[in-house]
Amino acid sequence: MTTFNRSQGRAPDALRPVRLTRHYTKHAEGSVLIEFGDTRVLCTASVEERVPPHKKGSGEGWVTAEYGMLPRSTHTRSDREAARGKQSGRTQEIQRLIGRSLRTVFDLAKLGERTIHLDCDVIQADGGTRTAAITGAYVAAHDAVSKLLELGLIERTPVKDAVAAISVGIVQGVPLLDLEYVEDSACGTDMNVVMTGSGGFVEIQGTAEGEPFSRAEMEALLALADKGIRELVAAQAAALRA
Amino acid sequence: MTTFNRSQGRAPDALRPVRLTRHYTKHAEGSVLIEFGDTRVLCTASVEERVPPHKKGSGEGWVTAEYGMLPRSTHTRSDREAARGKQSGRTQEIQRLIGRSLRTVFDLAKLGERTIHLDCDVIQADGGTRTAAITGAYVAAHDAVSKLLELGLIERTPVKDAVAAISVGIVQGVPLLDLEYVEDSACGTDMNVVMTGSGGFVEIQGTAEGEPFSRAEMEALLALADKGIRELVAAQAAALRA
Amino acid sequence: MTTFNRSQGRAPDALRPVRLTRHYTKHAEGSVLIEFGDTRVLCTASVEERVPPHKKGSGEGWVTAEYGMLPRSTHTRSDREAARGKQSGRTQEIQRLIGRSLRTVFDLAKLGERTIHLDCDVIQADGGTRTAAITGAYVAAHDAVSKLLELGLIERTPVKDAVAAISVGIVQGVPLLDLEYVEDSACGTDMNVVMTGSGGFVEIQGTAEGEPFSRAEMEALLALADKGIRELVAAQAAALRA
Amino acid sequence: MTTFNRSQGRAPDALRPVRLTRHYTKHAEGSVLIEFGDTRVLCTASVEERVPPHKKGSGEGWVTAEYGMLPRSTHTRSDREAARGKQSGRTQEIQRLIGRSLRTVFDLAKLGERTIHLDCDVIQADGGTRTAAITGAYVAAHDAVSKLLELGLIERTPVKDAVAAISVGIVQGVPLLDLEYVEDSACGTDMNVVMTGSGGFVEIQGTAEGEPFSRAEMEALLALADKGIRELVAAQAAALRA
Amino acid sequence: MTTFNRSQGRAPDALRPVRLTRHYTKHAEGSVLIEFGDTRVLCTASVEERVPPHKKGSGEGWVTAEYGMLPRSTHTRSDREAARGKQSGRTQEIQRLIGRSLRTVFDLAKLGERTIHLDCDVIQADGGTRTAAITGAYVAAHDAVSKLLELGLIERTPVKDAVAAISVGIVQGVPLLDLEYVEDSACGTDMNVVMTGSGGFVEIQGTAEGEPFSRAEMEALLALADKGIRELVAAQAAALRA
Amino acid sequence: MTTFNRSQGRAPDALRPVRLTRHYTKHAEGSVLIEFGDTRVLCTASVEERVPPHKKGSGEGWVTAEYGMLPRSTHTRSDREAARGKQSGRTQEIQRLIGRSLRTVFDLAKLGERTIHLDCDVIQADGGTRTAAITGAYVAAHDAVSKLLELGLIERTPVKDAVAAISVGIVQGVPLLDLEYVEDSACGTDMNVVMTGSGGFVEIQGTAEGEPFSRAEMEALLALADKGIRELVAAQAAALRA
Repeated sequence: MTTFNRSQGRAPDALRPVRLTRHYTKHAEGSVLIEFGDTRVLCTASVEERVPPHKKGSGEGWVTAEYGMLPRSTHTRSDREAARGKQSGRTQEIQRLIGRSLRTVFDLAKLGERTIHLDCDVIQADGGTRTAAITGAYVAAHDAVSKLLELGLIERTPVKDAVAAISVGIVQGVPLLDLEYVEDSACGTDMNVVMTGSGGFVEIQGTAEGEPFSRAEMEALLALADKGIRELVAAQAAALRA
Repeated sequence: MTTFNRSQGRAPDALRPVRLTRHYTKHAEGSVLIEFGDTRVLCTASVEERVPPHKKGSGEGWVTAEYGMLPRSTHTRSDREAARGKQSGRTQEIQRLIGRSLRTVFDLAKLGERTIHLDCDVIQADGGTRTAAITGAYVAAHDAVSKLLELGLIERTPVKDAVAAISVGIVQGVPLLDLEYVEDSACGTDMNVVMTGSGGFVEIQGTAEGEPFSRAEMEALLALADKGIRELVAAQAAALRA
Repeated sequence: MTTFNRSQGRAPDALRPVRLTRHYTKHAEGSVLIEFGDTRVLCTASVEERVPPHKKGSGEGWVTAEYGMLPRSTHTRSDREAARGKQSGRTQEIQRLIGRSLRTVFDLAKLGERTIHLDCDVIQADGGTRTAAITGAYVAAHDAVSKLLELGLIERTPVKDAVAAISVGIVQGVPLLDLEYVEDSACGTDMNVVMTGSGGFVEIQGTAEGEPFSRAEMEALLALADKGIRELVAAQAAALRA
Repeated sequence: MTTFNRSQGRAPDALRPVRLTRHYTKHAEGSVLIEFGDTRVLCTASVEERVPPHKKGSGEGWVTAEYGMLPRSTHTRSDREAARGKQSGRTQEIQRLIGRSLRTVFDLAKLGERTIHLDCDVIQADGGTRTAAITGAYVAAHDAVSKLLELGLIERTPVKDAVAAISVGIVQGVPLLDLEYVEDSACGTDMNVVMTGSGGFVEIQGTAEGEPFSRAEMEALLALADKGIRELVAAQAAALRA
Repeated sequence: MTTFNRSQGRAPDALRPVRLTRHYTKHAEGSVLIEFGDTRVLCTASVEERVPPHKKGSGEGWVTAEYGMLPRSTHTRSDREAARGKQSGRTQEIQRLIGRSLRTVFDLAKLGERTIHLDCDVIQADGGTRTAAITGAYVAAHDAVSKLLELGLIERTPVKDAVAAISVGIVQGVPLLDLEYVEDSACGTDMNVVMTGSGGFVEIQGTAEGEPFSRAEMEALLALADKGIRELVAAQAAALRA
Repeated sequence: MTTFNRSQGRAPDALRPVRLTRHYTKHAEGSVLIEFGDTRVLCTASVEERVPPHKKGSGEGWVTAEYGMLPRSTHTRSDREAARGKQSGRTQEIQRLIGRSLRTVFDLAKLGERTIHLDCDVIQADGGTRTAAITGAYVAAHDAVSKLLELGLIERTPVKDAVAAISVGIVQGVPLLDLEYVEDSACGTDMNVVMTGSGGFVEIQGTAEGEPFSRAEMEALLALADKGIRELVAAQAAALRA
């Protein structure tokens, strides 16, 4: 009933090709380039042997994230946030989301009093940068944890489960999985879903861009997201075995 | 099955007493004090006869929001954001949410090239400040629109529907409507839901604080939110009739 | 000899109705809504068990103030200082004045090494916000001290005297007490006077807006201020007895 | 009755030696080094052929001031405000005072739509920097106006009167004129007085540092200030004749 | 005479392997990943159809650069400048150098009233990031110019010559070309040299880290730089032919 | 062969008159007004008995510099950096250069764990402010060290050598020493050279403003700089003997 055509004949419930390149840069404890089609995000995990003030003396660690877009990762150049002297509301919202999502799968006590910083920098943007960032950051964090285990700094892994994220939305009445930029722009309703490897919800952020959405539409979107995240979790596992 | 007791014997699916005081201050085109129990937010709507750059020449107006907490609206004093020189990520996230929510029920073309600024300032916080802010801001915006109609500056109302918001969450396994601060702190899963008067979803933001949540839990929470928002929309209508 | 008429037939030497509402919000150690006619300022006193660096180890405490105006407390909306990223010169001047004025009536050694933060937030502005802030902050500070005494954290009150403030000015040649906004705007000379309960001067800030003022004019203004402050000090005492 | 001895046997009602050096630097339209004893402030007046937004199209000009202290103008080095990224409350208070004071003696309509920027930079501080700044800025502004008259850019001088300022205070019970740094530090009550050449008051800012001050003390201080300012106005006139 | 061994048996006068990957990202008019060994910098050129204020109406264009390092491009994680709210002095120094260097080979009149923004973002740092940035930015700028020519927006190329840069330094008495991070850290004297394709000097920045350096040492370093830059210019030409 | 005439018949290889006034202000441990013709820079050295974090516990001291221009030290008024809220890239570049240059002649271990802050403030600018700043800062630093020796806080001087700086450039084909502002503006190539008293190079910063420069031109400029710096070192020595 719809005439909307996705690029490269993609089915409404298909992810774009997902690529995870570990050890992408050499200094970080975890360094993963994740690609969702043309969206490319470099996720690095850096371990620091101290915690922010609110965790000092607690015996627990911390996991936090920062997010940025290179000025020309986008269609038209955006101002460099470092030059403007502040991070946009959007940037802060996204980095808070990434941090919260990752903490859900971490046992902070087992991590010990150290911090894992996840830096998610968008090299090229074509929709879904925040969901790619969460999905890639999990792999980077996992690699950093493996290093801590190897070095004997921790004995048991603090990672309780995998975590991944995907966007879903309704374009011209059709629920679509993993929106590209042009789909995102045309989108009536847009939802970012974060789930664990065992299928629990971590975050749901649904926004009606124009018309409000119904319960039924939400159900359809959640079903799509569930399918996509299962595939992402499989891709993460495959990358970590490689 | 649960032993969790809400303050003042409140039922799990009951709102706190809602009070809407219109014309709370005298300068603003709309000025509403909204109270959800001990949470008190002053929502003012100010009309400005110009639009931000991205709307210039479009014939359309704009609706935007700012949010703030008085330093001692909270249990312990928080730093004043004006003194620190920047708004926190949380503040920005909330004010973006309020703005988006209100724009969903506005026909910006009918508003004409003018801006409605919604200032939501928390006088006293006891959980649910952002949902109270959205609910109160709608009434303030409505009053500002009435003034524009009265003055003949616009001919037909740009308000397409009501909009209101409520928080829901799971505390010790029990889904609860309209969380107070102590409930929010104890909360496993926490969701803010924004809906229109006609029952469409505008925003859903669900976050697992500790354990992930299931599809069934989400369903229960959405049902609670739906009930609460119907009551809030009725309260808004009653206030606007008064 | 003048034809200037004050609103509601107020005499040149009359204060606007003064209202002091204690315990206005529930979290702060002291919380007072003060009203000078349509001017409404919420003054809260928060006790913090530490002092700024210059008092560390001195055995003495500190009293400090911050001031802010809600964006639409004024006739036309002002920018939110938190959003602009800095406090204006006027804001800083006023909060320094409030802090200095309150410290004059405090024995900082008796306070012990703790800080009283006075937050003065203008809910509605109609002239005289800084003088209302000082007058209300005294009552809030007094309530916070009472709490410290109750809790046995201090043995004797550090409050040496009351302190209150009022504006006076010359409008169309007539010296007026307690200027409203329209009077303030029309004002040739404008003076803010801060005095103790026992009648000593704490601060005098007189400014010629247009023409310089004479010694005789200043005398007349000081006499008016003296009268007004006596009444304010009585109102403070009455509120504290209530 | 007092044993307080001023440096170099100065009488309580004596100014420190005042020196005004015109044309101190070569680029500015007015450039005056003013010295009150060891206090040295460089005051420059720069003419700019445009006005701030609130004066645009008004036919009137503007006079504004900025104030700064070189980091080691003081006994111990202070942070450089440019490096800290903001001006202190004290700096802003002083520069607002200088600007207001100078505007009182300017007919802004006669100035035409242009701005005079007064930059007052403290080379060496020994008390009284703000009063020296006002006194020197007047001479610099006068020189800038002379240049405008010379160039035929304005026909009649916008300068209506001279303006000068001095500090007075009570040290160990004795009213003193023109406080040096050590006197200022020891000072119970401290007052800055700005007056015109014809003897009108422009600003009075009196502050009780410890004990409140009485009406009688204020009278004594104003009499001293009046004497000092007469001498400063004479020194300004002499410098402008030279 | 020296025992200093470069990694992978590199000769003192040898560059690290240089790789230039054009069209590295898809949105920018020019997008080049440049690698000097393990140093990797993404250089994008973005064309904007307007100029900064100082060029408005001049008929001339502008070329400007920004530089940034991803937080974990370095051995230990550095703070994100966007999060700190300002760019470091080092960052500003480098981006000013890149901009000046590129402008030297541009005929700004032929560019027309448009701006080329060069964003140089360090993905991985191992010494020489600023010289790699200049060398890569030239290729990116050249690609952006080709696009302008293709589109008929300009008729003749504004590019007058190639420009490239390299670092040289003296480590343990031996002059070395193209310093890696470990060499840079051990370095006595460190020089960055920018030259055109035709062999003219654009910038020389030599710094003695410990002992001052002699005229003879400088001569040796300049000879090395000259050799290295010839090779870089050849690599640029080869990449642009590809 | 050239017709370029320098002001006051100055020869191409002649410095402007150099004046060094020690003890220019009274509070600083070292305070020197340096004049290169009409360029006047006040250089103060302040000793602080602590070091920045990266030197804590190292037994070594630190030498650092800050640079500023008074707003009207220049031909047209520049914005005050303190008011704008940040230092320009140029300012940061210059103060980093001054700091590095001075550290080259300091034995930081002999200085002990204390900091010398060098504040270089431009009172009047006519070209060469950064080179005057370095040359004057050396004398101020030397005076501060003398005071430390006098007080017995250090036993042996940490000053290893003198350091001075000069600008050179090519104007209309003629290499010139010590450029004035008009020469600097007309300048094709511009070089700042910092050398020690014993003739070693500390910094060379050469920039082609328009056309690239050749090796031969650089040689000529370095010879001029060498001559100039010898004279400056002699002037420093003479001033320190006075």
